Amino acid sequence: MPLHPEAQLLNQLIDREHPELGRALSSFGRRVYAPKGIPFQAQQASGCKVNATIGQITDGKGLPLPLDRLADLLKGLPQKEAFLYSPIQGRERCRTLWKNKLVAEDVRFSSLALPGVSLGICHALAMATDLFFERGDTLVVPDLYWDNYDQIFEVRHEAHMIHYPFFEGTTFNIQGLKQALGQVSGKVHVLLNFPNNPTGFSPTQNEIKQIADLLVSESAQRIVVVYCDDAYHGLVFEPTATPKSLFFELIDRHPNLIALKADGVTKELSFFGGRVGFLSLGFSGTVGQYFNEKICGLVRGTVGSPVGISQYLSEEELLDPHHEASFQNLKSILEKRYRVLKAGLSQRSPFWTPLPFNSGCFCLLRLKPGLQAEKVRQQLIQDESVGVVSHQENYLRIAFCSMTESDISFLLQALHRTCEKMLTMHS
Amino acid sequence: MPLHPEAQLLNQLIDREHPELGRALSSFGRRVYAPKGIPFQAQQASGCKVNATIGQITDGKGLPLPLDRLADLLKGLPQKEAFLYSPIQGRERCRTLWKNKLVAEDVRFSSLALPGVSLGICHALAMATDLFFERGDTLVVPDLYWDNYDQIFEVRHEAHMIHYPFFEGTTFNIQGLKQALGQVSGKVHVLLNFPNNPTGFSPTQNEIKQIADLLVSESAQRIVVVYCDDAYHGLVFEPTATPKSLFFELIDRHPNLIALKADGVTKELSFFGGRVGFLSLGFSGTVGQYFNEKICGLVRGTVGSPVGISQYLSEEELLDPHHEASFQNLKSILEKRYRVLKAGLSQRSPFWTPLPFNSGCFCLLRLKPGLQAEKVRQQLIQDESVGVVSHQENYLRIAFCSMTESDISFLLQALHRTCEKMLTMHS
Repeated sequence: MPLHPEAQLLNQLIDREHPELGRALSSFGRRVYAPKGIPFQAQQASGCKVNATIGQITDGKGLPLPLDRLADLLKGLPQKEAFLYSPIQGRERCRTLWKNKLVAEDVRFSSLALPGVSLGICHALAMATDLFFERGDTLVVPDLYWDNYDQIFEVRHEAHMIHYPFFEGTTFNIQGLKQALGQVSGKVHVLLNFPNNPTGFSPTQNEIKQIADLLVSESAQRIVVVYCDDAYHGLVFEPTATPKSLFFELIDRHPNLIALKADGVTKELSFFGGRVGFLSLGFSGTVGQYFNEKICGLVRGTVGSPVGISQYLSEEELLDPHHEASFQNLKSILEKRYRVLKAGLSQRSPFWTPLPFNSGCFCLLRLKPGLQAEKVRQQLIQDESVGVVSHQENYLRIAFCSMTESDISFLLQALHRTCEKMLTMHS
Repeated sequence: MPLHPEAQLLNQLIDREHPELGRALSSFGRRVYAPKGIPFQAQQASGCKVNATIGQITDGKGLPLPLDRLADLLKGLPQKEAFLYSPIQGRERCRTLWKNKLVAEDVRFSSLALPGVSLGICHALAMATDLFFERGDTLVVPDLYWDNYDQIFEVRHEAHMIHYPFFEGTTFNIQGLKQALGQVSGKVHVLLNFPNNPTGFSPTQNEIKQIADLLVSESAQRIVVVYCDDAYHGLVFEPTATPKSLFFELIDRHPNLIALKADGVTKELSFFGGRVGFLSLGFSGTVGQYFNEKICGLVRGTVGSPVGISQYLSEEELLDPHHEASFQNLKSILEKRYRVLKAGLSQRSPFWTPLPFNSGCFCLLRLKPGLQAEKVRQQLIQDESVGVVSHQENYLRIAFCSMTESDISFLLQALHRTCEKMLTMHS
């Protein structure tokens, strides 16, 4: 089916400025464009005395007509922000504040376009794969990864996945990543997630630089699409764990190296059900705006528009002079739990080995031979009323982000009892 | 690529109970399943004393730890509902209340499963197409339709579209729909949207029954997937316009007739930026739950989870004893504008003919020969500071939902002046 003329035009602009990006797009990614339809016409009429463009019920002067109970529940918020549509591309204020936050983290972000707004971080990742992942392409991802990547990459895009061991000794396995990349000739996709789910691990800043250098060198002869899943950004508890995203090290490093950053308010603003995420492309220049037009087309055709109220609320939090203190307070609560868990795990257990962790929301225990993670998980619920997540055959993931400090030692004792019982039962 | 065992199992359950539904699924639809991953394990642990399953920052007792400004802005809401994740399948209370609302509209809905929750009505439609639309399939849709169907069907699924004239005389063109369906052999997709965007038209209840009978008879030898886009449900202003969805007439009518209902709070609760929609399947029995597992898998892999806060707010509105009065009040505001616009258009114009309209948010004017809609639209912004939407070559859409009554006559006068000027300029 021939491309829509607007898609052709957008692709031409991309191909001229950055041919490698044009080639990296999937066939669906090349079909996507920001339609000059109703929202576009509404935008053009936004300054008019009379605006009869958009199918949004208002008082005729740009303010909503909320129903009574909704109006009452949200009476502390400006009604326009609480009830009306967000622009398809996201609220300008929200995007600007998020960009400012990222520039403050690393000034290299300042040359990039405003981030595109998604409906949560998963949606930012999913849109990125829509744009770049061709059916059957190869994704290189460690053996320990968020299970939803199976849905995003395998189920939708029939990805071929190449795994490598996450750890080499006590740190991230850069050699393993290199060897995995060596198994793929041609275009390849790489997903990296620090602080990591499920391990709770972040590398050092020096290791981040080594990873970036590796990805640059791997891009010499082919397209390398890198998805930086920064969902747990900012939650680091050791001076060795870098607080900075890998993404910054990839900006404008090589035209073949397509760096994508997915982040959002879910954990960073502790706003889980709000569903506001962001997707950024690591190239300076006008191409960032063309990329945002692709995002616009995707948002329009899959979810209509981003969440208005959640963007507004997130903006207000980011604008609050006490925001940083408020976030540090949240982080310190997690850090205390982290320390208690570290201390509890410092005693050797006959039943598990904790993998290295220094950040994020989780730690991962590798169970000793004879213990099956799924069976231990179920027994632990039944005997001890303790819930953990079984991961693959012999890992348990502990989410210390959702436990009190005082429950942590109870959990470890309960796990000890359950493992002991199960080994006895089977011996 | 082979199907995941969980997808195979889910498909077997569907194929056994309702083989036609199984055959109607797209190849991607057959790949989708609700993963027994972290959310599933978290659900199993939800009653535990200690729940360390989910990567959600809480106080360890199931309550969130919101940042200060966010907590302050939403202090009127329960924090759990305001900040934490919604279940992937949507909040039970939200789904139940929406189902109750639909059952109250038509008791035939009572035999169906709870609706699946989406992130807005567009997302419900997009998920439905993901499940049923195979690349290159044919969609039958009137010539006057919401332009975003191009994104949803053509851009993503490379749909072949067959159009037929929306109107036959002063009502919906059932014969045209029949002839269009006659052009397709084998599986076909049909989209119907009443009250309609862009025409603002709804058929009579008798015509709805005729449409349903036609769709049933067209399903005798093949799969017919019907998407009922009920975005503007409830906004009807004439006794002849049916207030009821076509969907109800399609429930359990024929095993080959796959009826899907997309609706939501956007217009029905005047909550545009909230992004809560619903997707329902028109078959009784356990198959509705299997279908919801497919929706779960889609939500998980594309947007992570639905919007928590917006679902909660919508529930509270639906539970409010004054909800119906509040909605009727909103509707009566629109109805007054509708009457003013009707009256204004009752005088013949040398420049346009209004198409029939009786419901929804819009009316559509067909411009007389010599007037190009896009040029008139731009001139109208420039000369009169009035925004309308140009549709195709010679239609203008007027959204009376976003105008005051008093602006309506001004708009018509301004449009008259602009049309007059443009015809003079070109003569």
